[in-house]
Amino acid sequence: MAGDERAIGIAPVRPRVGFIGLGVMGRPMARHILDGGFALTVHSRSRGPVEELVAAGATAAQSPAEVARASDVIVLMLPDPPDVEAVLFGSNGVAEGASSGAVVVDMSTGDPLLARAWAARLAQGGADLLDAPVSGGEAGAIAGTLSIMVGGRADALEHARPVLEPMSGRIVHVGDSGAGQIAKAANQLVVGSTIEAVAEALLLARAAGVDPVRVREALLGGFAASRVLELHGQRMIDANWKPGARSALHRKDARIIQGLARSLGVPIPGFDQAADGYERLVERGDADLDHSALLILLEEQAGVRVAAAKEEDA
Amino acid sequence: MAGDERAIGIAPVRPRVGFIGLGVMGRPMARHILDGGFALTVHSRSRGPVEELVAAGATAAQSPAEVARASDVIVLMLPDPPDVEAVLFGSNGVAEGASSGAVVVDMSTGDPLLARAWAARLAQGGADLLDAPVSGGEAGAIAGTLSIMVGGRADALEHARPVLEPMSGRIVHVGDSGAGQIAKAANQLVVGSTIEAVAEALLLARAAGVDPVRVREALLGGFAASRVLELHGQRMIDANWKPGARSALHRKDARIIQGLARSLGVPIPGFDQAADGYERLVERGDADLDHSALLILLEEQAGVRVAAAKEEDA
Repeated sequence: MAGDERAIGIAPVRPRVGFIGLGVMGRPMARHILDGGFALTVHSRSRGPVEELVAAGATAAQSPAEVARASDVIVLMLPDPPDVEAVLFGSNGVAEGASSGAVVVDMSTGDPLLARAWAARLAQGGADLLDAPVSGGEAGAIAGTLSIMVGGRADALEHARPVLEPMSGRIVHVGDSGAGQIAKAANQLVVGSTIEAVAEALLLARAAGVDPVRVREALLGGFAASRVLELHGQRMIDANWKPGARSALHRKDARIIQGLARSLGVPIPGFDQAADGYERLVERGDADLDHSALLILLEEQAGVRVAAAKEEDA
Repeated sequence: MAGDERAIGIAPVRPRVGFIGLGVMGRPMARHILDGGFALTVHSRSRGPVEELVAAGATAAQSPAEVARASDVIVLMLPDPPDVEAVLFGSNGVAEGASSGAVVVDMSTGDPLLARAWAARLAQGGADLLDAPVSGGEAGAIAGTLSIMVGGRADALEHARPVLEPMSGRIVHVGDSGAGQIAKAANQLVVGSTIEAVAEALLLARAAGVDPVRVREALLGGFAASRVLELHGQRMIDANWKPGARSALHRKDARIIQGLARSLGVPIPGFDQAADGYERLVERGDADLDHSALLILLEEQAGVRVAAAKEEDA
């Protein structure tokens, strides 16, 4: 099949790849694609990352449309849904340049309903849109171990899969268009609520005079074990708020989650508490603290600090 | 040191053990102690388990005091704090029979402040009280793999440790008297809140038209991973409410957690939502459903079932 296509010149075996959005996440992701041996065309608002990738062998394009004209698979990694919408459907956008059969992979985190609408709109020109948000953060992007949650047609994912593999440790096809964003929303719901739970538990222990270090250790052996207890629990014990994932980003995700839940009539009373915490953190100017900083709000209310006794020990 | 003691006849190297409370948990726990080669004296309200253990080599005692008189280490596994208080300090209670130097190990889940008060009261007669609640449930009790969270003096734990080892996979000395119960409270807080989070996330996914099976799979690869997502998430997908741990028990724990948090001025807004769920489950007659049944309450509000599509698939 692939061989036939090559013979009659319809589609290349190895897709030409475009990448739009070379920020903190996008830059190392694009580099993995380049290192994977793909021809890569890039576009970004900032000059530095474009020049760096061009020096490594990529081609610079002047617009999203130009990227799309040069590519079979076009990857987007952008901050917010309005950015994605502009890059897709704005003047000189991807939709103007994408050929029929192209696969656009939007790896930004965003609204599932928008993802569905955009997919339908791109499909009018014969292109596929996969919503493919990731978890793993900057460290995962650099290491090439991102978890990718994919929504969209299975055929389109198979077309794009070789391009995704160099940057990922795990690719799950969750379902149709929007399903990747819904999985990411579910992921962020669980992460935010678990951060809140671990913060409450460690603070309760400390307020009751018990060392949170021992409590974390004891809990990791039982049903309370989680990656959040392991990683964010340690951050809380160290009062280490260097992100990681910024509270402002989790607030953005929280608004998407709450909007989705309200529109579907699904109660999320537990997560609403964490979401309220992210709103308050951003409002008071702590947008750039790691999302485990939900603890700080509780500490101030209780007048107790989880990390306090650690300083006393030192 | 141990050899010296044996030579001058002060204390046996291998403690004589008493066990009070041969219920669903206590019966297999006592059996592990007996199988570990300890001389065991037992007492329980129900005849059957006593007779079973006597047939296996244990000695039956007529009261907690009689158990205490025959034992160096006395293990308690009882349903509720009032039961523990009656066994310790009631007529013919442990306190009447315990010798100076005896170690009482209360493995029941209860109130940390009560544990401290009881320890102080027993100390007047020279006996130690360890609060040593477990996680792992009936399955862990049968397999001898319970996690034990211990509060109390380190010396007393070392004295009791050989008795605890046959029934446990992990023993963590969390801190002074009450610390074991506080760790258990923290554990149950995290477990309850994580169950609520996983329930909200899977229901949101289902309501948005996405298969919760795939979402669970995707989330297990990232920061949302937890034992609750793995185990209770699967229960939710299967609509399997056979306990496990009963909702009534988690309500009991929730009241202890909330009482402790209120008394210490620690806000636990996330867990309060799960606690409210357990109150409602018990009130409506679902006390005996597994604690993952928090999902049912959300499903009824949303008019959507997580397990629905699974039945459609079959």
